[in-house]
Amino acid sequence: MITHAYRHGGDVWSVKAQGDARQWIDFSANINFLGLSPQVKAAMVNAIDDVIHYPDPHCRHLRAALSTHLQVPTAAIAAGNGAVDLLDQWLRTVQPRRVLITDPGFGQYLRAIKSVGAEAVVMRLTEQNQFAFDGEAWQRAMQLGQCDSAILCSPHNPVGWTWTKEQRDQVLARAEKAGIHLLVDESFLDFLPDGRGRSCVATAAQSAQVAVLYSLTKFFALPGIRLGALIAHPARIAALEAQRDPWSVNHLAQVAGVAALQDQAYQEQTWNQLPALREQLIHTLRAIPGCRPYSSTVNFVLADIRATSLPAPVWTGRLRDRGLLVRDCSTFDGLGSGYLRFAVRPAPAIEQLGAAMKEVLAQR
Amino acid sequence: MITHAYRHGGDVWSVKAQGDARQWIDFSANINFLGLSPQVKAAMVNAIDDVIHYPDPHCRHLRAALSTHLQVPTAAIAAGNGAVDLLDQWLRTVQPRRVLITDPGFGQYLRAIKSVGAEAVVMRLTEQNQFAFDGEAWQRAMQLGQCDSAILCSPHNPVGWTWTKEQRDQVLARAEKAGIHLLVDESFLDFLPDGRGRSCVATAAQSAQVAVLYSLTKFFALPGIRLGALIAHPARIAALEAQRDPWSVNHLAQVAGVAALQDQAYQEQTWNQLPALREQLIHTLRAIPGCRPYSSTVNFVLADIRATSLPAPVWTGRLRDRGLLVRDCSTFDGLGSGYLRFAVRPAPAIEQLGAAMKEVLAQR
Repeated sequence: MITHAYRHGGDVWSVKAQGDARQWIDFSANINFLGLSPQVKAAMVNAIDDVIHYPDPHCRHLRAALSTHLQVPTAAIAAGNGAVDLLDQWLRTVQPRRVLITDPGFGQYLRAIKSVGAEAVVMRLTEQNQFAFDGEAWQRAMQLGQCDSAILCSPHNPVGWTWTKEQRDQVLARAEKAGIHLLVDESFLDFLPDGRGRSCVATAAQSAQVAVLYSLTKFFALPGIRLGALIAHPARIAALEAQRDPWSVNHLAQVAGVAALQDQAYQEQTWNQLPALREQLIHTLRAIPGCRPYSSTVNFVLADIRATSLPAPVWTGRLRDRGLLVRDCSTFDGLGSGYLRFAVRPAPAIEQLGAAMKEVLAQR
Repeated sequence: MITHAYRHGGDVWSVKAQGDARQWIDFSANINFLGLSPQVKAAMVNAIDDVIHYPDPHCRHLRAALSTHLQVPTAAIAAGNGAVDLLDQWLRTVQPRRVLITDPGFGQYLRAIKSVGAEAVVMRLTEQNQFAFDGEAWQRAMQLGQCDSAILCSPHNPVGWTWTKEQRDQVLARAEKAGIHLLVDESFLDFLPDGRGRSCVATAAQSAQVAVLYSLTKFFALPGIRLGALIAHPARIAALEAQRDPWSVNHLAQVAGVAALQDQAYQEQTWNQLPALREQLIHTLRAIPGCRPYSSTVNFVLADIRATSLPAPVWTGRLRDRGLLVRDCSTFDGLGSGYLRFAVRPAPAIEQLGAAMKEVLAQR
């Protein structure tokens, strides 16, 4: 029995469960186009014999590698079974009543907020404003005392913008001043070559109010093994560790994370190739009549396809018939059936996407 | 920073972190002496390329395999990131105030109970009674209205007994009648050749009151990859799924679980070899002056070492100097420093243990 609706991108197992064993080109999940690093794969293969032991509950090697990568002390880092695990854990230590989020936004925020019995306060990003971040509106919402906590995703999923340093500093200052617990989701920040300089981790490691959600899943193409981190004040990390399952991060995830963070070449290759591939994707989408891609700072592109006269579920179905998975954004509150999201893939896949979309329109 | 004390068995990573790179013979974790099944290892190696996809949130193949193994419908099964993950999730759906547990007992019960803001009501298993299960005392404790929930481990960790079918049926009937939420932890039940016939899963799949915790970690020697299951009424499973992280079970764990459950030869080899090896372990421990092993139905043996005049921490330290890890039971409430726990290992390892223990006594 499928006990709950699941409409996230990258759900290749549902497609396979429906009896379709083709190899899919997956534009639906925001995973690095380089795929799995050979060094990470080798490290995992070598580590399989060690699954006969419990994983290190303190994730010592992994947290040391994260400490180097993020430039914060290990005491300010908790590793988790994917970023979503740590989203849940952060909410459990904060125990919020009303949590400010953006709409559209990552669907798991709402699920997680409800699971702790809290309420979501939604700030709408508007189509007229290209779904951009409205720093002033956010400040006002935090100021009005309508919320005690807030979750903000920058770079933003599914829209693709990244806030400016000025916006960041204003929001952090406001959270500190207003005593609001702020979780900044930086799951996609590594895709920016200057991402580390734009991060909130330095503040999070010292602040009682600010925490950062960090994911290795997207940048290092590891969603299947689950690996994320939370950066927060050491006192919050200690509180979180005291109430959690000590073995939540499996051994292969720990090993994969260390190998991934050491693979500097993979990171540089991503930064070198991403701008041109993203440009190619945007250019390809612009060439589809009625398709309006938004600009993006990361490895995915949101597109308004309302003017194609085909709703998103029709697009996803027809592209799937052609071996391509794309993300139907009607599952995001505030977007409806007029939007698709595309992950950046290698050049030949983007060409295939362009041809398939033209074919769909021609056969409309 | 090590943010919380961790004193579970099988913590090879702490030993290694202290700079000792030896190969350990690990009697401290209750893991199958056969080690990792070659078929399971091969399945995991083959599946590594698929970690670029999110794991199947519905764990379809795994739950189908569990359904066959446990003989309950898939709708009554939730898979989890180890049994402890599901212990936490069960507590979150039940929302108990007072939870009856035994003392000694698995330490994670207390951590999990506290993490949901509930209180533990402790029933002591007494040394005079060989720490055996006292069905009547348990019934009384459930009857007195002191608790709204209860967690009972059978086969019992760390003592090693398994309750009789009569005791089981009485406890299940009482829980149903008294409206008490009962979680039966069957993490070690597969070690009994007739374990399936002694299970509570058939009741759990239909009852609003009873649930079963099932682990693949111990029997299939997979603690490092994290894999467990909860068997409960489909309505409870649905409630649990609605509030959980959808990707909590990583892809390699799902693949490993399916391969493990299909490996009938591994299961039979375990049942064929376990009785003689356990007998050898008990015999070896009896030959150590002052060491009194308890009888056991599973793959570990508790021993009273008070008459050796060396406390448990001294024993663990001196055996560790000799390359052997054993479990100091002073970390279990209600046992103190007079008890050690030993997992059943292959025959040569047991011989080495016997020799090392004699040496420790000789050098006392």
